[in-house]
Amino acid sequence: MTAQGRIRPVRDRGEPLTVVAGGAGFIGSHLCRALLDRGEAVLCLDTLQTSRASNLAALQGHPRFEFLRHDITQPLPARVLDRTPRIARVWNLACAASPPRYQRDPEHTMLTNVVGTNSLLRLAEAAGARFLLTSTSEVYGDPEIHPQPEDYRGAVNCTGPRACYDEGKRAAESLAFDYGRAGRAEIRVARIFNTYGPNMDPADGRVVSNLICQALRGEPLTIYGDGRQTRSFCYVSDMVAGLLALMEAPVDGMEPVNLGNPAEITVKELLEQVVTLTRTRAPVVRRPLPQDDPRRRRPDIARARALLGWAPSVPLAEGLAATCAWFAAELGAEAGAAPAKASV
Amino acid sequence: MTAQGRIRPVRDRGEPLTVVAGGAGFIGSHLCRALLDRGEAVLCLDTLQTSRASNLAALQGHPRFEFLRHDITQPLPARVLDRTPRIARVWNLACAASPPRYQRDPEHTMLTNVVGTNSLLRLAEAAGARFLLTSTSEVYGDPEIHPQPEDYRGAVNCTGPRACYDEGKRAAESLAFDYGRAGRAEIRVARIFNTYGPNMDPADGRVVSNLICQALRGEPLTIYGDGRQTRSFCYVSDMVAGLLALMEAPVDGMEPVNLGNPAEITVKELLEQVVTLTRTRAPVVRRPLPQDDPRRRRPDIARARALLGWAPSVPLAEGLAATCAWFAAELGAEAGAAPAKASV
Repeated sequence: MTAQGRIRPVRDRGEPLTVVAGGAGFIGSHLCRALLDRGEAVLCLDTLQTSRASNLAALQGHPRFEFLRHDITQPLPARVLDRTPRIARVWNLACAASPPRYQRDPEHTMLTNVVGTNSLLRLAEAAGARFLLTSTSEVYGDPEIHPQPEDYRGAVNCTGPRACYDEGKRAAESLAFDYGRAGRAEIRVARIFNTYGPNMDPADGRVVSNLICQALRGEPLTIYGDGRQTRSFCYVSDMVAGLLALMEAPVDGMEPVNLGNPAEITVKELLEQVVTLTRTRAPVVRRPLPQDDPRRRRPDIARARALLGWAPSVPLAEGLAATCAWFAAELGAEAGAAPAKASV
Repeated sequence: MTAQGRIRPVRDRGEPLTVVAGGAGFIGSHLCRALLDRGEAVLCLDTLQTSRASNLAALQGHPRFEFLRHDITQPLPARVLDRTPRIARVWNLACAASPPRYQRDPEHTMLTNVVGTNSLLRLAEAAGARFLLTSTSEVYGDPEIHPQPEDYRGAVNCTGPRACYDEGKRAAESLAFDYGRAGRAEIRVARIFNTYGPNMDPADGRVVSNLICQALRGEPLTIYGDGRQTRSFCYVSDMVAGLLALMEAPVDGMEPVNLGNPAEITVKELLEQVVTLTRTRAPVVRRPLPQDDPRRRRPDIARARALLGWAPSVPLAEGLAATCAWFAAELGAEAGAAPAKASV
């Protein structure tokens, strides 16, 4: 796929087109930027339900970027279907990913993953396009083995409040592999572990953004449970590099691939790093662990290393510093250019 | 719910109505019969894709039975929606349940479980009706613990060829519990283990029907793997009694309930019982175990006993004899009243 001119539906020259569902979200916006940098023409579909308008604004100036507000649980609009023959790649990153957001409308979360994924798979099938699903480490639930390799079947509570997302993603994977097995579409499935960086939504309820925003605002820092649960945090540029490698690698795609950073730290250690970076003196408050919250989560990335030659390269200290700087600017702008309460 | 006259859409007297999706199937047809016997007015929805026409024919003579050919992946027709206020119970038994059948169109299997279940949940919500999902022991996948209690999270391969069914049912459960948690509908979820009896489809590919039909036809008896994998077989009258008890019991419904027979036998022992009953002298042929076929499956029915006071009562020998007799008549009728090759 090489650099092409601006998409002109009226004077369609048949350039290859890349569809990115969920392209206005946190990872999606970085992915769209990287695809544009690679010279691709990007058609971004997003509901903007959980995406930040500023992520989109930064992309919309680009001549090869086009945005269409669309909910993938609904039939694809003519503006997409009419260009089916041009579509070479279909990325599905569409779904609220933080528990408070995806639990707000669990029916919609499930349908986004199942009906939405199926609709995009049908589009890929009709287009002869390659399809990539961003699945999640949540398919492993609260895992009993560490780190989690891709053939671990997981420990998901399919009746609990997180199931709309976890089971929705498992169902989406199942659909993708069925299309792949039947030769209906060439598929790739990435299981994304915790990712952080600029463009995260401050109100998303993720541990990294929560702690940084609380520190920058001088608010008490919240820890759920005893803080000894571990997470592995991947900087967003590493994640996007992994996603691009998976989409474009000459592999058969019939195996899911973990993408994440295997460096494991406790939430308490993360808090200490955020305190050091932001120099906050705010107190720490403890809250009970939410239901079905995984105690430990760490990717086994042997498959990604072997298949894609990929591994994360940004150390946590470096990524956190960049993320803190971005949030400081973001919160400063939000507060009408007033300085953040804590020094950075 | 008491006995009511025949449903007359034109002169609707507002009798309570019971909707049974999948009511022409194996268990569905027995359930419809039991509901009619209890005096309920039954509206059966079925695609007839995997149901036997004769199951339906036996019901259609009943004055309180109404059939509508409908695929629950499609929007509910006016003939259902127009009677929403009358609907008191919604049963979802709709989905092909044998691996060869549900793997024929995995996309449809997934959508039946997710889109179909959601559509019926919305109907129950609009009607203020109680909803029961027939889920499956397949939500436990190839289990590592025996017997399986309801809080076991299962070992399902979400990328394999059985996932369209297993993950579809897990997703359907997730939807049902989300409706229940939000107070949108009163829900019940039964996890049905292997069930057998009259009205099974001879071509369904189940081990009981396969072995009995092969024996009655004098064909070689097929065993997959070494035959040491175990199953627990519940006679259909016991299953229907359990389903009715679960639907009508004054429980809160927010826990799934295993229904099945905990008496565990190997497939090889089942074969020996079928050989004894049918007196076949046909040879046994061994085939490789299909991918992701569970090695062992046995319900822990402590919850059903405690909540519903239910336990199966039909011994396997008795149930198998009745099933063999039914299949002998069925295959005899199929062959134009010619005697079955094996004596019964």
